[in-house]
Amino acid sequence: MTDTNDKAFTAGMQIRREMFGPGGAEERFAQATDFNRPLEEVVTRYCFGETWSRPGLDRKTRSLLTLAALTALTKPNQIKVHVVGALANGCTVEEIRETFLHTMVYAGVPCGGEAFNAAAEVLARHSAGAKP
Amino acid sequence: MTDTNDKAFTAGMQIRREMFGPGGAEERFAQATDFNRPLEEVVTRYCFGETWSRPGLDRKTRSLLTLAALTALTKPNQIKVHVVGALANGCTVEEIRETFLHTMVYAGVPCGGEAFNAAAEVLARHSAGAKP
Amino acid sequence: MTDTNDKAFTAGMQIRREMFGPGGAEERFAQATDFNRPLEEVVTRYCFGETWSRPGLDRKTRSLLTLAALTALTKPNQIKVHVVGALANGCTVEEIRETFLHTMVYAGVPCGGEAFNAAAEVLARHSAGAKP
Amino acid sequence: MTDTNDKAFTAGMQIRREMFGPGGAEERFAQATDFNRPLEEVVTRYCFGETWSRPGLDRKTRSLLTLAALTALTKPNQIKVHVVGALANGCTVEEIRETFLHTMVYAGVPCGGEAFNAAAEVLARHSAGAKP
Amino acid sequence: MTDTNDKAFTAGMQIRREMFGPGGAEERFAQATDFNRPLEEVVTRYCFGETWSRPGLDRKTRSLLTLAALTALTKPNQIKVHVVGALANGCTVEEIRETFLHTMVYAGVPCGGEAFNAAAEVLARHSAGAKP
Amino acid sequence: MTDTNDKAFTAGMQIRREMFGPGGAEERFAQATDFNRPLEEVVTRYCFGETWSRPGLDRKTRSLLTLAALTALTKPNQIKVHVVGALANGCTVEEIRETFLHTMVYAGVPCGGEAFNAAAEVLARHSAGAKP
Repeated sequence: MTDTNDKAFTAGMQIRREMFGPGGAEERFAQATDFNRPLEEVVTRYCFGETWSRPGLDRKTRSLLTLAALTALTKPNQIKVHVVGALANGCTVEEIRETFLHTMVYAGVPCGGEAFNAAAEVLARHSAGAKP
Repeated sequence: MTDTNDKAFTAGMQIRREMFGPGGAEERFAQATDFNRPLEEVVTRYCFGETWSRPGLDRKTRSLLTLAALTALTKPNQIKVHVVGALANGCTVEEIRETFLHTMVYAGVPCGGEAFNAAAEVLARHSAGAKP
Repeated sequence: MTDTNDKAFTAGMQIRREMFGPGGAEERFAQATDFNRPLEEVVTRYCFGETWSRPGLDRKTRSLLTLAALTALTKPNQIKVHVVGALANGCTVEEIRETFLHTMVYAGVPCGGEAFNAAAEVLARHSAGAKP
Repeated sequence: MTDTNDKAFTAGMQIRREMFGPGGAEERFAQATDFNRPLEEVVTRYCFGETWSRPGLDRKTRSLLTLAALTALTKPNQIKVHVVGALANGCTVEEIRETFLHTMVYAGVPCGGEAFNAAAEVLARHSAGAKP
Repeated sequence: MTDTNDKAFTAGMQIRREMFGPGGAEERFAQATDFNRPLEEVVTRYCFGETWSRPGLDRKTRSLLTLAALTALTKPNQIKVHVVGALANGCTVEEIRETFLHTMVYAGVPCGGEAFNAAAEVLARHSAGAKP
Repeated sequence: MTDTNDKAFTAGMQIRREMFGPGGAEERFAQATDFNRPLEEVVTRYCFGETWSRPGLDRKTRSLLTLAALTALTKPNQIKVHVVGALANGCTVEEIRETFLHTMVYAGVPCGGEAFNAAAEVLARHSAGAKP
């Protein structure tokens, strides 16, 4: 296992925890295998520690940009994760919906449909008061 | 030619003009052929008149979402157009750069590289004081 | 809820009903939430009301083009829907198969494989006499 | 160089010649290098000799399906080639335009825009009476 | 049913059997329907018989290239199949992991995540001693 | 400008220099603007310093995997860069060609065609003795 005491890793774990709770942070490492631990490290360090932590855009805007990118790339599993993160970052359900409708113009109707279906599952749990 | 006096068309032309100037609005229709006029009508009515005009997200945020989607989809020609529109909608160069860096995490390094190259051309003209 | 008495909406609902039955038309709106109703409206108005209803290509050809696009874009959920629609529009099973084999040349073997798998589920129900 | 006297190769060359003229058939092999000759052989044998020659869909429909796939995949260079082939196979300019507008619903506005731009170049030469 | 006694078909079946066992070779044809038999034939002849059998790259390298392509194209069902094939071709689990991490740079974090998740299912069965 | 004395940055610059010469390393930073310098830093640190430098796959295999991913993603500009790097890493022209033909099975004929065209430009300069 590589060293994980560096600044980027620590910053990344902090953001993961704030957006997804311990289930999307420490617990992911506790369950990681030799096979996928390097993936978790790259995600923590490069994605969250070095990119999400940059100045220039607030975290709420970054959540909407992430949902736009994931919609364009048709990644329903990651959309479910980032709808949770978007709510934690202060996005409203209306803003999430508008992000999908807007991105659909550029990515096509099926990309939009997949995004709506993925998010609806998460939002149903959310409005029922379940923790994500 | 279909009727273009409806509300969606009029609203769309207004937004196109505000974002891209007459060269991205009336002049596109003046130069349109029988072949591509229906394309311009769909873009005006569905893209700008019915989507960009929706409430729920301001126009500056919509510009950044558009750039995120176009980066993920590798569409350099449209990135050039929408960097102009983003500046008109009040986005800063730093926000545009951060949008590309953020989206690159999800879409891969080559998508990010293509977006930077496309935008750099437009921004060079912009900072030289030329009208877009 | 926006107004839905316009010509494009009415035409779109008619085509949805003819291709997919009430389950793909009125019932979708009866079950819609505030979250996904705008999606259904865009699909009805822009996709079916303004595009599928255009002259220049018959509905059977539009079904095959739709299946080609969905194969190239790897959208198995939408392929299932549009295989039902293609049968309603008069396409034969052989034409559907040939569309997948032809598109596979341009989109790659995995896109073709996913299309065949998605369609096979629908066709098995179809040939068993079940309503789609 | 591999043997090219087999049935699939011969059938493929015949279709290439009928759709694109000698410049898209024999001349491509005359100009081929050791590097790209295997590509031309795969294209001739698998794409044209084994797929385009299949029964079940006529050649005109296959041209429109090809344009739909290439639009969805954003392949402007190949769109230019296949607009020439579509005209040779009896497609009208209106049918080509409708194929792009239809596919755009599923693939997004930028894919449609790129297809229109690529085709417009070829159609301008075509209507000016130039041989493709 | 077309003739399947040609050299490319025979060579392709041999490679399919060596990589995936009878379940990925003869049994696929035994279970094939009129609908998907032409797909199996194209896969056997063009994919395995004419491409995997070419000189110039060994079969282990071809397995890693296949996993890179499937990661970039987000095809989890095919990744599961080709992780089995890669192990049969002598790739180590570490090489498979490194292929995903490397490709993720170019295709984005979600493509990498989907590849790891798909492969982890197969590898769990593999290390438990089950035949693939 | 951020600090660039860290280990990942130094390792990344070393690999960039070995694969592409000073024109793909120091000179890129000398020419960088405030706009694109962060892109060059991410590429150097994450792509080359943290990924290309990993054990488990040799650099020649990583070059072929990179070309497979870029072919699948249709990134001709980056293919030109990485054909140069592949040659520096000891790949033969035949191995590069076979990588494209192999990937084309999974990504479709147009992706293969674009890769061949992009590489042919670079290889023509290479065989003429020009430095890349």
